[in-house]
Amino acid sequence: MKNTPQVINNGGLLDRRSFLLSGLSLSAALPLAALPLNSQAQALPSKSYERLPQWMKMPGSPVSEYGQPSPHEGHIKRHIAASTPQTSLFSVSHSPIQNQPGIITPNGLHFTVSHNGVPEIDPHQHELKIHGLVDKAIKFDLQSLLRLPMVSPIHFLECAGNSAPNAVSLTALNQSVDELSGQVSGIQYSGVPLKYLLQEAGLKNNAKWVIAEGADGGSHARSIPLSKLLDDAFIALYQNGERLRPEQGYPMRLFVPGWEGNTNVKWLHRLEISDQPAYTKDESGLYSDILANGDIRRFSFHMDVKSVITQPSGRMQLPNRKGYYDISGLAWSGHGKIKMVEVSVDEGKTWVKAHLQGPILSKALTRFSIPWQWDGKERVILSRAYDEHNRVQPSRSQWRSHYASYSFNHYNAIQAWSINADGLVENYYV
Amino acid sequence: MKNTPQVINNGGLLDRRSFLLSGLSLSAALPLAALPLNSQAQALPSKSYERLPQWMKMPGSPVSEYGQPSPHEGHIKRHIAASTPQTSLFSVSHSPIQNQPGIITPNGLHFTVSHNGVPEIDPHQHELKIHGLVDKAIKFDLQSLLRLPMVSPIHFLECAGNSAPNAVSLTALNQSVDELSGQVSGIQYSGVPLKYLLQEAGLKNNAKWVIAEGADGGSHARSIPLSKLLDDAFIALYQNGERLRPEQGYPMRLFVPGWEGNTNVKWLHRLEISDQPAYTKDESGLYSDILANGDIRRFSFHMDVKSVITQPSGRMQLPNRKGYYDISGLAWSGHGKIKMVEVSVDEGKTWVKAHLQGPILSKALTRFSIPWQWDGKERVILSRAYDEHNRVQPSRSQWRSHYASYSFNHYNAIQAWSINADGLVENYYV
Repeated sequence: MKNTPQVINNGGLLDRRSFLLSGLSLSAALPLAALPLNSQAQALPSKSYERLPQWMKMPGSPVSEYGQPSPHEGHIKRHIAASTPQTSLFSVSHSPIQNQPGIITPNGLHFTVSHNGVPEIDPHQHELKIHGLVDKAIKFDLQSLLRLPMVSPIHFLECAGNSAPNAVSLTALNQSVDELSGQVSGIQYSGVPLKYLLQEAGLKNNAKWVIAEGADGGSHARSIPLSKLLDDAFIALYQNGERLRPEQGYPMRLFVPGWEGNTNVKWLHRLEISDQPAYTKDESGLYSDILANGDIRRFSFHMDVKSVITQPSGRMQLPNRKGYYDISGLAWSGHGKIKMVEVSVDEGKTWVKAHLQGPILSKALTRFSIPWQWDGKERVILSRAYDEHNRVQPSRSQWRSHYASYSFNHYNAIQAWSINADGLVENYYV
Repeated sequence: MKNTPQVINNGGLLDRRSFLLSGLSLSAALPLAALPLNSQAQALPSKSYERLPQWMKMPGSPVSEYGQPSPHEGHIKRHIAASTPQTSLFSVSHSPIQNQPGIITPNGLHFTVSHNGVPEIDPHQHELKIHGLVDKAIKFDLQSLLRLPMVSPIHFLECAGNSAPNAVSLTALNQSVDELSGQVSGIQYSGVPLKYLLQEAGLKNNAKWVIAEGADGGSHARSIPLSKLLDDAFIALYQNGERLRPEQGYPMRLFVPGWEGNTNVKWLHRLEISDQPAYTKDESGLYSDILANGDIRRFSFHMDVKSVITQPSGRMQLPNRKGYYDISGLAWSGHGKIKMVEVSVDEGKTWVKAHLQGPILSKALTRFSIPWQWDGKERVILSRAYDEHNRVQPSRSQWRSHYASYSFNHYNAIQAWSINADGLVENYYV
């Protein structure tokens, strides 16, 4: 029997189960013009043998030893947000998350922040030293680390400054989602748990902090509580099944799941065990948070619960004036698993629970989606994520009430997109 | 208090929990030479400020729009197993699974089998047609498919002929694990469930099979039971978060989770709904299985439960004559989740349950590992996987007793590696 997809919200959000079950009768159940498939499927001329395309008339090319994307997809690349080409000192590139389905970012499109450019390190000369408040100072070369037991969790990684334009700009900038919030990636990093290495060095009783330093020209360094390193942190040697890439810290980086990007020190060469933080340049400056009352909050490591609709998103043009669309996006939390994502298509007046695609993993990107029958009227769409600890995204005004007006790190407020009657999608402040 | 890792097998396999909990006392608990860390960690000279490496004295390079591996890792590439360069007709490349941790294969190293080379398809001209026993024949262009709801499961993909050398060679060939069994990859493919498209076309009552055809110069085609396409099959448009690559079927391929690689038709351009299979060239020939009694088994789609130890594996040289090693490998089943993997270090006399790393996903690569204290004596190590349906890998002789002596598809027997007293690892038949 024929089912009709159930509209569960007067903005046109559809019940996913009824949508999926509408089965073979979907085309009969809704007017043709409004259908997800009918609107796109074209009748195939019967008994017409079309001319074969050129590529079906000849053998193809040989396989390569290392594959690359299609030349037709060359426009899918990282957005270079900041770069000082002459010195390469500070550079930022964003993942094109509007073009990424699922929860894995391909290695070539992993976002990057480099405070001193990308060093060209000889892996045979690189060593990781562990010293300070330990029973014995030790060092490891790369080959030694590669032999140790590894873990391979799938996690997100996000820059503390991701979405900064929305934090500081008083008017909503007309930018794409990767320009606004593309400093986040989903990766299966693999490496050696820190606890193995620290137990080998032997920790003194007063050991409390670890200063992690990179071997870049500028020695980016952060202080990390020892408890985190003994919990789930590891020395990452691989990303998505192959060795770390130079822009991600080759030959090794620190990985501290759920914590702000810059604490995941790239090109790691030194861990100094201490009884207090080092108050390094970046942790005393750039990565301190200035609050509304003037207080300075240091060591705000966790990236909080957050979500963003990636389809449709900023600067997109919906191909049809109305009709079916699949609203889809990413959610994540540095505190654990995503529990729920709600979507609104009426500027936040009403909310509907979206579908979470599996796998749902702790401190990992989580994909959500919900079918939507757009009526062609102006709409403002939003997503709001909750994690397993019931942390929920604040509104933009709630977020800004906590921070100084020029503060931009740890912005996790609800992202809104406006869609006008022509189907143009723009960044929007509710 | 100090714990001692517990040897749970007279071949030296260690209890993982006791190994992990042995904590800071690991170095005290076992003789130095035999330790995972002591054997590798070197004392750091105290108060010596070493000369800074060159790369710490200058700014690094700018970030690129699309990242690439380190030049130092250029040797990690696909093994080109078969190729006819002049015509490129048939080519095979293997994933270097001995260099891959975790369960994700990077896009550049995804194994490939191409029956007619890699076609260079213009995505703007490419269409997917659905016709035959349907209410209306329809077609989709790429842009239409990209707008539909997608799924993004993480699955393995394996060629029916993976591990063929072990199936047909009467002596164990001294090959590496990628040469023997590298026609398998783990990928998060994303795409549109077939059921959406088939319901749009409308299926006739006598529809039972679907002939899937590629747009390569040779029109690779396979017949698939309709029930599979209505279950978990999808039109894959992405791999690991970016658009499909040419060698994986750009701009679209069929993905049928858990089924032999060649049924996941690349460069897919046509699905013909039928009441019977087409008995295409490849399914009547290459991908039919000849049994020991002379019977021919066609349409043996599922890839059965299988595992292989990747570290240590064929042609590796263990760096030390004895000591600690992490035995690690991959397991998978086309029928569902991996339930258990056992490891033996005494040629199969005794078996110990290995640790399964999460996430453990259905029809996906699953990573297993177990710590091992090698005593330096000659050893034969094996792994044996069980899936959630209690399917278990056969021995090589059991497998061969079912098939004709020259049959090589669907080989899933237990892989053994011999390790001699010099630490040289070789393929071995038990």
